[in-house]
Amino acid sequence: MDRIPILRMGNFLLVTIQVDLYDRLALNLESDLVQMVSKTGARGVLIDISALSIVDSFMGRIIGNIGSMSKIMDAETVVVGMQPAVAITLIELGLELKGVSTALNVEKGMALLQHKIGSSEDLEEDQDDSSVE
Amino acid sequence: MDRIPILRMGNFLLVTIQVDLYDRLALNLESDLVQMVSKTGARGVLIDISALSIVDSFMGRIIGNIGSMSKIMDAETVVVGMQPAVAITLIELGLELKGVSTALNVEKGMALLQHKIGSSEDLEEDQDDSSVE
Repeated sequence: MDRIPILRMGNFLLVTIQVDLYDRLALNLESDLVQMVSKTGARGVLIDISALSIVDSFMGRIIGNIGSMSKIMDAETVVVGMQPAVAITLIELGLELKGVSTALNVEKGMALLQHKIGSSEDLEEDQDDSSVE
Repeated sequence: MDRIPILRMGNFLLVTIQVDLYDRLALNLESDLVQMVSKTGARGVLIDISALSIVDSFMGRIIGNIGSMSKIMDAETVVVGMQPAVAITLIELGLELKGVSTALNVEKGMALLQHKIGSSEDLEEDQDDSSVE
């Protein structure tokens, strides 16, 4: 396998990471994801890592990269399903996943994304209003 | 990895198969899925196989099994994202995936499930009405 499937669900993209990411797989995922955000106009990216029982610094960095890339493509990233051991390891490795939100499961992650997108749209509307006045 | 994650999304369960299923993984998936259907009361199961470029008779049989198991647990199964080559192979192997519906992608699969569940609920309501009269 050299590609991780990206599923489109309305305004969001869902990625389920089930295998250890090696170099090429991670690069493919990054490029596929930004292309998919650009093509579909998705406003949120959900990354499910519930299948990962261990994580290393490479994996942590890739997740951080995806978050940063999505951010400059105007999409929020939420990591869901993190196992307790993975959270411990990430902090011990000094990886705080800046710019990436987390939620306990996919449903909560979707609710969080909807809330974030809703509030950013409100903000845009407010700004539009003020520019009109 | 010895477990494929099952994601709950409202009334539905979503499974993304990214790796070849070997014996133990397939058995775990079957048992996890029926337990999850029982625990959550899910009415539909979406199986995404867009990451599979090849399929063998074992894999085809497991997908059929999952469909049958879900059916007797009162949940519909929809397989989504099948690649053309996989469809050709399944038919050439004589596996017609009876009792399993298919859809082109997750969004269409969800719409199909919603339609199926909606129509079965209408039927139940009709039956309730007639028993009251």
